[in-house]
Amino acid sequence: MSPTTHTLESCRALDAADALAPLKAQFSLPQGVIYLDGNSLGAQPRAAAARVAEVVQQEWGQDLITAWNKAGWIDLPQRLGDQFAPWIGAGTGQVAFTDTTSINLYKVLTAAARLAQAEHPGRTRVLSERSNFPTDLYIAQSVCQAHGLELVLLEPEDITAQLRDDVAILMLTHVNYRTGAMHDMAALTAQAHAQGIVCVWDLCHSAGAVPVDLLGANADYAVGCSYKYLNGGPGAPAFVWVHPRLTDRFWQPLSGWFGHAAPFEFTPDYRPAAGIQRYLCGTQPILSLSALQCGLDVFTASEALGGMAALRAKSLALTDLFIALVEQRCAGHGIGLATPREHARRGSQVCLTRAEGLGVDGQGSGAYAIVQALIARGVIGDFRKGDGTGRHLDILRFGFTPLYVGFADVWHAVEHLRDVLASGEWQQPEFNHVNAVT
Amino acid sequence: MSPTTHTLESCRALDAADALAPLKAQFSLPQGVIYLDGNSLGAQPRAAAARVAEVVQQEWGQDLITAWNKAGWIDLPQRLGDQFAPWIGAGTGQVAFTDTTSINLYKVLTAAARLAQAEHPGRTRVLSERSNFPTDLYIAQSVCQAHGLELVLLEPEDITAQLRDDVAILMLTHVNYRTGAMHDMAALTAQAHAQGIVCVWDLCHSAGAVPVDLLGANADYAVGCSYKYLNGGPGAPAFVWVHPRLTDRFWQPLSGWFGHAAPFEFTPDYRPAAGIQRYLCGTQPILSLSALQCGLDVFTASEALGGMAALRAKSLALTDLFIALVEQRCAGHGIGLATPREHARRGSQVCLTRAEGLGVDGQGSGAYAIVQALIARGVIGDFRKGDGTGRHLDILRFGFTPLYVGFADVWHAVEHLRDVLASGEWQQPEFNHVNAVT
Repeated sequence: MSPTTHTLESCRALDAADALAPLKAQFSLPQGVIYLDGNSLGAQPRAAAARVAEVVQQEWGQDLITAWNKAGWIDLPQRLGDQFAPWIGAGTGQVAFTDTTSINLYKVLTAAARLAQAEHPGRTRVLSERSNFPTDLYIAQSVCQAHGLELVLLEPEDITAQLRDDVAILMLTHVNYRTGAMHDMAALTAQAHAQGIVCVWDLCHSAGAVPVDLLGANADYAVGCSYKYLNGGPGAPAFVWVHPRLTDRFWQPLSGWFGHAAPFEFTPDYRPAAGIQRYLCGTQPILSLSALQCGLDVFTASEALGGMAALRAKSLALTDLFIALVEQRCAGHGIGLATPREHARRGSQVCLTRAEGLGVDGQGSGAYAIVQALIARGVIGDFRKGDGTGRHLDILRFGFTPLYVGFADVWHAVEHLRDVLASGEWQQPEFNHVNAVT
Repeated sequence: MSPTTHTLESCRALDAADALAPLKAQFSLPQGVIYLDGNSLGAQPRAAAARVAEVVQQEWGQDLITAWNKAGWIDLPQRLGDQFAPWIGAGTGQVAFTDTTSINLYKVLTAAARLAQAEHPGRTRVLSERSNFPTDLYIAQSVCQAHGLELVLLEPEDITAQLRDDVAILMLTHVNYRTGAMHDMAALTAQAHAQGIVCVWDLCHSAGAVPVDLLGANADYAVGCSYKYLNGGPGAPAFVWVHPRLTDRFWQPLSGWFGHAAPFEFTPDYRPAAGIQRYLCGTQPILSLSALQCGLDVFTASEALGGMAALRAKSLALTDLFIALVEQRCAGHGIGLATPREHARRGSQVCLTRAEGLGVDGQGSGAYAIVQALIARGVIGDFRKGDGTGRHLDILRFGFTPLYVGFADVWHAVEHLRDVLASGEWQQPEFNHVNAVT
């Protein structure tokens, strides 16, 4: 932790010196809002409105069925995949944007199960993290049930000791949604491979947020979300990646026509396409895919300003600053830190904790109410409930997207948090009615 | 077949008397185009452009993460399902728009397999139609492989004889994509149920096109497409329906968080929601879902003009007229009819055939080139390849959407077809290069 004393002026100086600052103009953000929830729903790229209008009015409205070829809808999942591939250390032809993270995880986890059972038929254990994002665990339960496998949930510090030769698959989310803690993908993959374990990575909270090098790490399968850090729009299609040494070894069970080698020959037998195309299934939502392209285009534009190295440096500077300011200015209010201080273990978010018993009248943690009071002030983060034990506390979660969050934003956000805590504003009844769904 | 001699004037008189004619103004269609491919991609409702702009600019851009509640994104799949349910004879809470037809079929077919194996453990046969839409067969192959079932493909006239007590599942598409032939859903379902067979219906070419009464037919499971007759936009999410007596008996394998009983409690164990919500999986593409609502709104608006009874009457009048005109004015050019003349067996499309050997220099059927020549004249239908046998000929396919196709449109379309055939225009080399993908 830096001992530097930050001020609003020093934060403004950081913004003035920030080479990435011009990128903020590519986004449409509401006046008076400090948006620290891009890890849940990324902001709207300004180009999206015109692009989607063009798709609706010209391509759909005027070109109609011919737009599948004329406007290139037919291979949009793969073209967007190729555009984004370098940002996760993948090659051309290896990535497709399609369906949802949950569905893509079902595809790759089934392929991984088939691979594991082909290579090491006796193994039945699938390892994951207890605080992995729940949909990953739900999908894994389904795949395990179908393949006679057992899902074993571990705390993060217990994972390496369990990477033994009785494990079929290791399924992890690279950056944890509750803590912002990042796994060492290369080290864990190497350790798992040394034991013959297949590795599946969920990049929902890391794609576009931190450097990812799937080929460098020699990962096996990966999936991820496009509506968080990629700013693809609400529910925009997710991505799927398979290492080229594995792509053609199996095919996934959602064997729809878009994954067929010749979908428009309309033959009755499924024959999977070569490459990542076999991970496609049905017809994709073109309006949503088209908006997503505008999100990816901002990343492409950022390359001239330093690309991922610059984004990562700014992200760490933002999260360092937030942590330092919270500790300097919000002390004495029961706020803790769930996110690792070590840069190599930190994603692009900071998760604060608050213990049970600190809420109004000693009920609950008060974390939900604090987040609501901040939202009412225009500082948008989110709340993630703990499990009621000391192990997983209630979380106040703040995402720092270097594309559109600045250093003065961090200053003001912490000042609001300080005011909310110091004034007791969060104790107002209006902030203590739990009815949020996201 | 009617012996009436139709003229352009008689067709215009039919348009003038058509109570549904005002609905055409709700669609944006290109000038000079007669669009007979709404069975592949429906036209753009005029309301879609403004609605999608509102979602992009206000809901995503300004409301950001709060739009999940504020704009009602969170339950949009079910709200759209409730809006459309009456059009397929389903009840409130029984339908959801989500994912793709292929993926929804995977869900319900797996649930059907679980049901069949629970009720009649020894049965292994899954019956379908050889010329079912291929993605249905591909998905069925995958589900059969996973459950030790055997997919048996039949010609339509052989189905009833095979509905015996060794069959687990009957999976049919209500209206055939190649021929426009419609099955008798109620009769086949009753006959199948009498033998303990589970029935899965694909409504891709019937939802919004013909009367469908799922509850009346006592069907078990159904899926369907929203980008054809529902005019939901390219790749708009598909729908899924499960009979309420079955919904809670099993859950489907794509067990993502949106199908969980309490998705935002973030518990590690999957607990399926009650009702159709358990057929949801991941986060849905909100831009595409929002455009779909505009397509459904046109159906809602049509209720005041007679609803499905009026739409069906006009659809049959359009297809009757097309068949009569083709036979009167295009005779002698080797054009046949694949679509049943009997109203009870006809969907909302007419499929013409052309035999192998009738193409340029006796190569192929010439059907592809005829369709291309028509498209060049602004009459948009599509081509579906035969299997090279006399059994399944090459198809020229024309969809008649009563929401925006008129009787004079039919007249002009047939005149263009007549000109293309009589002049030999279709033989031009430019129309004979097969490179279309849709």
